[in-house]
Amino acid sequence: MSGSVFGKEFTISTFGESHGGAVGVIVDGVTPNIEISAENIQKELNKRRPGQSKITTQRDERDMVKILSGVYEGRTTGVPIMLVVFNKDAKSNAYDNIKDLFRPGHADYAYLQKYGIRDHRGSGRASGRETIGRVAAGAIAKKILKEKYNIDITAYVVNVAGIKAQKIDYSEIENNIVRVADKDVAEEIVAKITELMKQHDSTGGIIECNITGVMPGIGEPTFDKLDADLAKAMLSIGAVKGIEFGAGFGVAEMSGSENNDWMDEGGFQTNNAGGIIGGISTGQDIVFRVPVKPTSSIAKPQPTVDINGEEVVCETFGRHDPIIAPRAVPVVEAMAAIVILDHIKRQKALHA
Amino acid sequence: MSGSVFGKEFTISTFGESHGGAVGVIVDGVTPNIEISAENIQKELNKRRPGQSKITTQRDERDMVKILSGVYEGRTTGVPIMLVVFNKDAKSNAYDNIKDLFRPGHADYAYLQKYGIRDHRGSGRASGRETIGRVAAGAIAKKILKEKYNIDITAYVVNVAGIKAQKIDYSEIENNIVRVADKDVAEEIVAKITELMKQHDSTGGIIECNITGVMPGIGEPTFDKLDADLAKAMLSIGAVKGIEFGAGFGVAEMSGSENNDWMDEGGFQTNNAGGIIGGISTGQDIVFRVPVKPTSSIAKPQPTVDINGEEVVCETFGRHDPIIAPRAVPVVEAMAAIVILDHIKRQKALHA
Amino acid sequence: MSGSVFGKEFTISTFGESHGGAVGVIVDGVTPNIEISAENIQKELNKRRPGQSKITTQRDERDMVKILSGVYEGRTTGVPIMLVVFNKDAKSNAYDNIKDLFRPGHADYAYLQKYGIRDHRGSGRASGRETIGRVAAGAIAKKILKEKYNIDITAYVVNVAGIKAQKIDYSEIENNIVRVADKDVAEEIVAKITELMKQHDSTGGIIECNITGVMPGIGEPTFDKLDADLAKAMLSIGAVKGIEFGAGFGVAEMSGSENNDWMDEGGFQTNNAGGIIGGISTGQDIVFRVPVKPTSSIAKPQPTVDINGEEVVCETFGRHDPIIAPRAVPVVEAMAAIVILDHIKRQKALHA
Amino acid sequence: MSGSVFGKEFTISTFGESHGGAVGVIVDGVTPNIEISAENIQKELNKRRPGQSKITTQRDERDMVKILSGVYEGRTTGVPIMLVVFNKDAKSNAYDNIKDLFRPGHADYAYLQKYGIRDHRGSGRASGRETIGRVAAGAIAKKILKEKYNIDITAYVVNVAGIKAQKIDYSEIENNIVRVADKDVAEEIVAKITELMKQHDSTGGIIECNITGVMPGIGEPTFDKLDADLAKAMLSIGAVKGIEFGAGFGVAEMSGSENNDWMDEGGFQTNNAGGIIGGISTGQDIVFRVPVKPTSSIAKPQPTVDINGEEVVCETFGRHDPIIAPRAVPVVEAMAAIVILDHIKRQKALHA
Repeated sequence: MSGSVFGKEFTISTFGESHGGAVGVIVDGVTPNIEISAENIQKELNKRRPGQSKITTQRDERDMVKILSGVYEGRTTGVPIMLVVFNKDAKSNAYDNIKDLFRPGHADYAYLQKYGIRDHRGSGRASGRETIGRVAAGAIAKKILKEKYNIDITAYVVNVAGIKAQKIDYSEIENNIVRVADKDVAEEIVAKITELMKQHDSTGGIIECNITGVMPGIGEPTFDKLDADLAKAMLSIGAVKGIEFGAGFGVAEMSGSENNDWMDEGGFQTNNAGGIIGGISTGQDIVFRVPVKPTSSIAKPQPTVDINGEEVVCETFGRHDPIIAPRAVPVVEAMAAIVILDHIKRQKALHA
Repeated sequence: MSGSVFGKEFTISTFGESHGGAVGVIVDGVTPNIEISAENIQKELNKRRPGQSKITTQRDERDMVKILSGVYEGRTTGVPIMLVVFNKDAKSNAYDNIKDLFRPGHADYAYLQKYGIRDHRGSGRASGRETIGRVAAGAIAKKILKEKYNIDITAYVVNVAGIKAQKIDYSEIENNIVRVADKDVAEEIVAKITELMKQHDSTGGIIECNITGVMPGIGEPTFDKLDADLAKAMLSIGAVKGIEFGAGFGVAEMSGSENNDWMDEGGFQTNNAGGIIGGISTGQDIVFRVPVKPTSSIAKPQPTVDINGEEVVCETFGRHDPIIAPRAVPVVEAMAAIVILDHIKRQKALHA
Repeated sequence: MSGSVFGKEFTISTFGESHGGAVGVIVDGVTPNIEISAENIQKELNKRRPGQSKITTQRDERDMVKILSGVYEGRTTGVPIMLVVFNKDAKSNAYDNIKDLFRPGHADYAYLQKYGIRDHRGSGRASGRETIGRVAAGAIAKKILKEKYNIDITAYVVNVAGIKAQKIDYSEIENNIVRVADKDVAEEIVAKITELMKQHDSTGGIIECNITGVMPGIGEPTFDKLDADLAKAMLSIGAVKGIEFGAGFGVAEMSGSENNDWMDEGGFQTNNAGGIIGGISTGQDIVFRVPVKPTSSIAKPQPTVDINGEEVVCETFGRHDPIIAPRAVPVVEAMAAIVILDHIKRQKALHA
Repeated sequence: MSGSVFGKEFTISTFGESHGGAVGVIVDGVTPNIEISAENIQKELNKRRPGQSKITTQRDERDMVKILSGVYEGRTTGVPIMLVVFNKDAKSNAYDNIKDLFRPGHADYAYLQKYGIRDHRGSGRASGRETIGRVAAGAIAKKILKEKYNIDITAYVVNVAGIKAQKIDYSEIENNIVRVADKDVAEEIVAKITELMKQHDSTGGIIECNITGVMPGIGEPTFDKLDADLAKAMLSIGAVKGIEFGAGFGVAEMSGSENNDWMDEGGFQTNNAGGIIGGISTGQDIVFRVPVKPTSSIAKPQPTVDINGEEVVCETFGRHDPIIAPRAVPVVEAMAAIVILDHIKRQKALHA
C-alpha cells in the first residue's frame, strides 16, 4: 500500500507539496452522523499556522480549509471526507538560488537520489505544509474521541535548548508562544530563542504528549502494538528524531523491581510503562515524548555541495521559524488521535 | 489488515504463544532463487536462544527450526516460506499459581481487558518466544541484503544499568555474554548483573544498531518514512520502550548550525540525522538506539492484585534472565533487516 | 485499510459524491519522470462524460480535471498526484421528491441501512460520478503502460439487449455512440436503444476488454491472482454484475481436452484461459467480459416504498442514459490499467 | 502487502505447496471466546478431501488438521490461530517425466516465467492442496457467522457438461457425489462423468452459492464492495474462471424496468441484484455463480513443448479427478464466509 496512506480502519491519504496547487487529505472510515464543520477543523489548523507570533515565520499563509465531500448538512455521512487547503500563488523563483544545491539538514539530496527528479520549491513534498492534511484529519479524530469516548489528547513542549519545564499546567500551554506548560520556564525559553534568532540560528526541543481516557484493551499484541503504531505516527512527522514511552530511555538504568508498575485495590499505582504494556493500553494515561530537531533553514551561510558535487555556500533567504517544536504540537496531537481512534475501531472489529 | 502481519513487499505473518503447539512465521515476497537452508536460519535463532550463558534462563528450549514450504532443492522459489519451531510439551501447571493474578510489569491485565479470555501460561502470545518467528524471517532478509546489496546490520548493547560502552569494536560483540562491543565495559556489566541476580532483581539496557551499505533513496516520504517504519518495527518488540536516530533526543539541546549535517566534495561529513533525512536514506550509516526494559519476572515477591481486584503477592518461580537486552540484539537486527529489504523492494516497484 | 483505497504499489484513493464540492483521486506510487498533462487525463475523462450523444444524459457536466500536486514542469515527481473535478453548483432541491423513498435498482435502501444517514442527492457516493477519479487515475496508468511496456488496453461493447457484435474492428469503436466494434451491429443497437427510450426504459449490455503486450509472469499465485484482482476491480464498478475470463462460463460445457490451451514451437495456440493461468499472465492477450446492468433511473413510474415502509410511486425526472455500458467502457479500461501496472510493479519488487 | 494474505479484519495467510512439508494457514482477527475444535475444522476439510468417491482421486491424503496456536481450553483467545496439515512423504520422482515440460492447462509456463525457478512436483503452490488452508480458515468463519449472526452459506453444483439442475433441494447436496441439489439430475451427471472418464477426459461445471441471513448494510461503497470482494475471493480459487451475481450476464438482455428490484410493504419482491446493490448488502439472500474449469490433468496424451521450446507429448500418469467442481464447493463456501465475516467486522469498526 502506498506510503501516503495511514491507518487501517480510520484511514488518511495525504497529498500536496509546498508550491503545488493545494495540500490536503482524504479521511475515510469516519463514524457516520457526527457533527463536523470547517470551523472545527480550522481551529486545529490555526495552531500549526505560520505567522502566529514573532517566533513563527511571517509568511502569510492563511491555510483556510474547505470540505469537498463526505459531510451532508453538517454531519458526516460515513463516506470519504476530502479536506483541502489551496496554496497561494507563491513566487517560486524565490527558490532559484537553491535549485541546484543541497541545503544542509534538508532532504534535497535524498529526494534527488530517490526520484531522479526534484521539485525544489519550498522543499516540495518534504515541506512542513505536508502536515496540514494530518492536522485537518486529526481534528475529526479528536472530535470523535472526545464526544464518543471522552478521550483527551494534550501535547506541549517540555524542553528547549536544554531548558526544561519544571511543572505541567495545561492552562498555560496556549498562553505562551512556545507551548510550554510552565509559565516561568516559557519566558526563559522565549528569551533564549530570541537570542538564537539574533545569531541567525535555530534550536531543537522536546514535546510530551499525554492521552487520558483510553479504555484498557486497545492495541494489537504483535506488530501493531499501540506504542509501535504511535511510534510510527510520530517518526513520520518530518522533524521528529525519536520517541520514548513512560520511563523511556530511563529504563536502561532501572531495575525490574523499580520499573515494574504495580497494582493494588485502587488499580495501577505507578506508570513507568506509559500506559501501554505488551502493546495494549492499560487504562492509565498514555505518555510519550518526542525530540524535534532544530529548523534546518537558518540565515547563517553554510557550506554544502551542488548537484555536480562542487562546494558552494548555501544562503537561505526569507523568514524561517527559529524552532519547530511549538508548531509541531498540534501535529503530534493529530497523529496520536488518528492512531487511538483507528485502534478503538479495530478493537470493535475484533469482537464482532 | 491483521496486526500479526508486517511489511508490504517482504511480508511476515507470525503466530504462536509460549505454550501452544509451535511458534513460527510465514515469509512472503522472498526473492526467488536465493540459496537458503535451515542452518542459515538456525544460526540466528541460536543467538536469541535461552540457556546460552549463566545470565540467560536455563530452560532447555532447543528452538530447532523447520522449513515447511517455499524452498526447493535449497533455493527459494518465490512462494511463501513457512518456518516453524515446535514448542516442547511444557508443564503448564507450573503456571497455576499465577493463573488468576496480574504479574507486575506483564501484559496480563491488558490482555484480559482486551480479549476477555487469557492464556496465562508463560505469558501466552506476549511471551518472548513470539520473537522466534521474527528472527527466523530476519535471517532470510539479512542473507538477501548481504548477498544482493552488501548491506550489513549490526546491533550491540551500549548501556546496562548506567554502565556505558566507551568504544565500539564489532569483533568483541560475540565474545561476551552481554553483547557489549567493549571488552572492559562488558566485564564490568557482567559483574553488575551478577550482583543483581543475587538480589533477585533484573536490569534494563540500551541497544544500538548500525546499518551499513544502504543505498541513498530508500524510504517513502510521508507516513512510511524509513525511520518511521524502523520505529514501528522496534517498538513492536515487547520490551522496547523507545527509539532515537542519530543525535536523537540530543537534538533538543542543539542549534540548527550544529545539527545540520553538511557535505563537501567527499560527501556527508557528519551524521546527526542517523542516515535518514525526510524519511529517506542518505547513503550514510543508519544508526539508532533502543532502550530495553528490565525483565519483568523477578524472583523477589511483589505486591499485586488478582482478577477479583484483591491484593495478593506475586511470586515467580523458575529461572528468568536478569536482563533482556543481549537476547534482544538478534531481534533488533532481524526487524531492521525486514524493514530495509521491504523498502528496497518498494523502491524498485516505484520506478517500474 | 479503507475501502476507498485500491492497489498496492500503484495506489488510488478516491473521494466525492454527486453533489458535494468535487470528485477526485489521489494517485500514489507513480513512476517518476513521466510526462503528464491535464490534457492527457482530460482525453480519457471525455469518454465517460455525459452529453456525448443523444443516448447520454444531456446534463452539462464539463468535468474539467485539475492537477493539484505531484507534477512539476510537466513531469511526475514520484509523490502523490491529486486530480480533482469540481462539481457545478447543482440544484439539489431537484431531488426533494426522492429524499424519503427508495428508488428501485438504486442503493438508497442499502446506504441508509449501512450508515443510518444518507446524502440522497444524485445518489451521493453511489453516483456514477464516483468513476471520474478512476478514469483520471487510469489515464496515468495507461500512459505508463504504453510508454514503458507497450501495453494496450481496449474495451468495447459486444452485446446490448441481446444483439451481439459479429466481429471486432477496433477502428470502429469510437465511430459509433455505443462503442461497438462492429459497424453494422452498432447501428442495429442504436435503433433498439432509441426504441427503448420511447418506452421510457433502459437496457443492459456486455463489455469485452482485451489487453495486449503484458509480459508473462505478472500476478501473484494465491489471493492476488491477476484475474482475481481484475475481477475485484471490475465488480467495484457500480453497474457491473459479473466477469468471465477467456472461455468463462463456457468452461462448464467443455471437456479438459477442449479447454486446455496447448503450445507448440510457436508458443500458445489457443487462449481459453484468457491470458492468465494459475493467476499469472502467460504473455497471451488478456481477455475478459463484464455484464453491465441497465440504467436504474428510468422515466417510467415504478412502485416502491418510502423510509416508513409505506408504498409509493417513484417518478424520476430529468434525463438519464438509456444504457450505461458505453460510458462504462473507459472505466473498465482505467481499472484494468491500474491493476496491470500495480502487478508489474509488484513483480519488480519480488525480484529485488 | 503480500499476495498470500487475504482479508482486512479477519485475515488469513496461507502457505504450502503440494510436495513441501505442509500446507496451512494463519487466521487472525478471530473473535475471542468462541468454542472451536480440530473436529469442527476437519469436518469441512473432509468435504474437499480426495478419495471421497469414485470420481475423486484415489490418492490417500488424510489431510488431518492440527491447531498449533490461538486456541486455549477449546476456545479462541483472539490471537492468531495456526492450522496445519502435514504432507505425506510423497514420491516426488513420480513427477520426473514432467519436470522439463509445460503441461497443457497448467500454470507451469507462467510460474517459470514469473519466478525463474519452479517446483514442478504436483504443481507446487498451484496445487489444489493450497485450498486446504482456505477451507480450514473458512470453517472458523462459518462457525462464527452461524453462532453469532445465524448466517448460512450453502454452495452446490448447478451445471456439469451442460446438464443443468432443475431444482434446488439442499438436503440432496451431500447425498450425491457431484454435490448437485437435484437428485435426478445428479444421477444423469454422474453417468456423463463416468463416460468421460472412460475417454480419459474431464469436464467443467458451475457452482452456485446462496448466503442467507446477512444483515443489510454490509460492504464498502467504492472498491471494497461486497460483491467486488466476493469476486476476488472466488477468482482467487485456482480453477474458477468467472462470477456473476443475481441476474448476472443475463442483465445484458434485460430492460431497466425488468431488472430493477422493487419493494413493497413486505420488503424486496425480486432479487435480480443477488442481494447486493451499490456494493452493500440489502438483507436479501446473496446469490452468485462461478464456472469451474475442467481438470487440466487428463490421461489422454496431449501435445506441448518443453522448456527448450521443443515439441513433446505430455502424458499424465496417476489418478486425477474427472471434475473439479464438486470438491471446489467447500472452497467456495469457505472463501464466502471469510469475506462476509470480514465485512461484518469492518461495519462494526466504521460505527465505532
